[in-house]
Amino acid sequence: MSLLVVGSVAFDSVETPFGKHDRLLGGSATYFSIAASYFTDVKLVAVVGKDFPKKHIALFKRYSVDTKGLQITDGKTFYWKGSYEYDMGSAKTIATHLNVLACFDPVIPAEYRNSKNVFLANIDPEHQEKVLRQVRAPRLSACDTMNFYITSKKRVLVRLLKKIDIFFLNDSEARQFSNETNLLKAAKCILSLGPRMVIIKKGEHGSLFFSRNSQFSVPGFPLEIIKDPTGAGDSFAGGVMGYLSRFKKIDERRLRKAIVYGSIMASYNVENFSVNRLSKLNKRLIDKRYNEYKKLTHF
Amino acid sequence: MSLLVVGSVAFDSVETPFGKHDRLLGGSATYFSIAASYFTDVKLVAVVGKDFPKKHIALFKRYSVDTKGLQITDGKTFYWKGSYEYDMGSAKTIATHLNVLACFDPVIPAEYRNSKNVFLANIDPEHQEKVLRQVRAPRLSACDTMNFYITSKKRVLVRLLKKIDIFFLNDSEARQFSNETNLLKAAKCILSLGPRMVIIKKGEHGSLFFSRNSQFSVPGFPLEIIKDPTGAGDSFAGGVMGYLSRFKKIDERRLRKAIVYGSIMASYNVENFSVNRLSKLNKRLIDKRYNEYKKLTHF
Repeated sequence: MSLLVVGSVAFDSVETPFGKHDRLLGGSATYFSIAASYFTDVKLVAVVGKDFPKKHIALFKRYSVDTKGLQITDGKTFYWKGSYEYDMGSAKTIATHLNVLACFDPVIPAEYRNSKNVFLANIDPEHQEKVLRQVRAPRLSACDTMNFYITSKKRVLVRLLKKIDIFFLNDSEARQFSNETNLLKAAKCILSLGPRMVIIKKGEHGSLFFSRNSQFSVPGFPLEIIKDPTGAGDSFAGGVMGYLSRFKKIDERRLRKAIVYGSIMASYNVENFSVNRLSKLNKRLIDKRYNEYKKLTHF
Repeated sequence: MSLLVVGSVAFDSVETPFGKHDRLLGGSATYFSIAASYFTDVKLVAVVGKDFPKKHIALFKRYSVDTKGLQITDGKTFYWKGSYEYDMGSAKTIATHLNVLACFDPVIPAEYRNSKNVFLANIDPEHQEKVLRQVRAPRLSACDTMNFYITSKKRVLVRLLKKIDIFFLNDSEARQFSNETNLLKAAKCILSLGPRMVIIKKGEHGSLFFSRNSQFSVPGFPLEIIKDPTGAGDSFAGGVMGYLSRFKKIDERRLRKAIVYGSIMASYNVENFSVNRLSKLNKRLIDKRYNEYKKLTHF
């Protein structure tokens, strides 16, 4: 079943202890689409400016990402500049230029409206709601968010969550959202608001999955080379949603495997800047790391 | 096979957001012994002052911990005072009074010298060396340490590590010891110095095990109630070493199970102050959490 994603497509300038690069291809929907494309067909809804190079659109197409929903409007593409210290834990934002994203009106092409799986990447929750309303009968809906919207649009987010199956957020966002330091209490608080499942991303420490009757933990994959953590969370979501979109029936076993595939995509993604590593994977490499994950965690 | 531990037995005054208690029973060898006692016979070597109450010695005996190696000398028992903030990540030390520990001369009773399993809890590495020299032919030796000794006695530690099978330390200590931010690189650096295995403890994020040819990761057990993290690392080591001491042959499967048992003991320990939770366990509760760990991590 196909998978619809709405989010940002961006230029990123990123500096980490392992390099400094300007105007890389970035954005939540970019990482998500490429990661998910290894598992299913992806339909992309986003906006870029006239400055967005054709080679990037060609890249999406190479991964069979449907770009009919990629609006190209007058103005400049969304731009983010950030840096990471040695611990690679969290980005320090140096500049954010919304540019064309400021006037983004996410209109879902008619032929996308039957999508059965929807991922609302980190954009204004009012836009996330608007997208979800345009999709006829999603089988599986998920969203991400960020600290800025938890502060400024919590009421909209809470309303959105009632219609969401999986809520992805990181540990500090989960604490902020729930006002609970303890992550288990935070997850229970979030689940009580409506979503059937919550996945708390903990960067190098992996992720925690919670539903009403189960918990699942996946560690971060131990890596020697971590060049750029940008997009790890979106690559993770891409792996999770991409894998789940392959099945009509989602059960506990598939959910767990999906989270492992998400972790695999995130772990590969951080090995290089932009989508440079993520775009060079194949089934063999993904399966290899899946088996390594089993060795790493089973007893 | 019996298990020898040398370390501290102490009075702890601890304040966390969940309570404040003075002169609790504490110390690395205390947590280790009680945790390990659920798996094997433990022989304790430590020093306390004349102020150490008989009821605490009776507690050790109740757990079949052999206290013939517990020296009672003139002076006061080692005292530590610390506090934790809401995140419970790391203790802030308010006071450390070495007292009788300052003149501790760890002499191993003759009948302990055939111990096949030895744990050198966090004390001066020169004392750790001295203990190891007195044990005839240990089958399995392990040690812990702390930032203070990595700074002040690194050369002794490096010398000690050549004779050690398992080195337990936490993530920040591993980074400090190896001068590597990346934990995988840190582990490789440490392994290159001699120990066959290294276990990096990451508090609520669980632990990572490394040998020359394998890696194993166990998450922290998701808990709603975490009252006091003091002694978690020593309870962990107690579970690991206690479980391994039950077997003549140690293979990869048993090592993994040992680390899970260590995680279980640590997770129970933090549910209450001092050894108040750790001392109220039984096989059923330990097995229950073992099965929950399997559910939490397998896919």
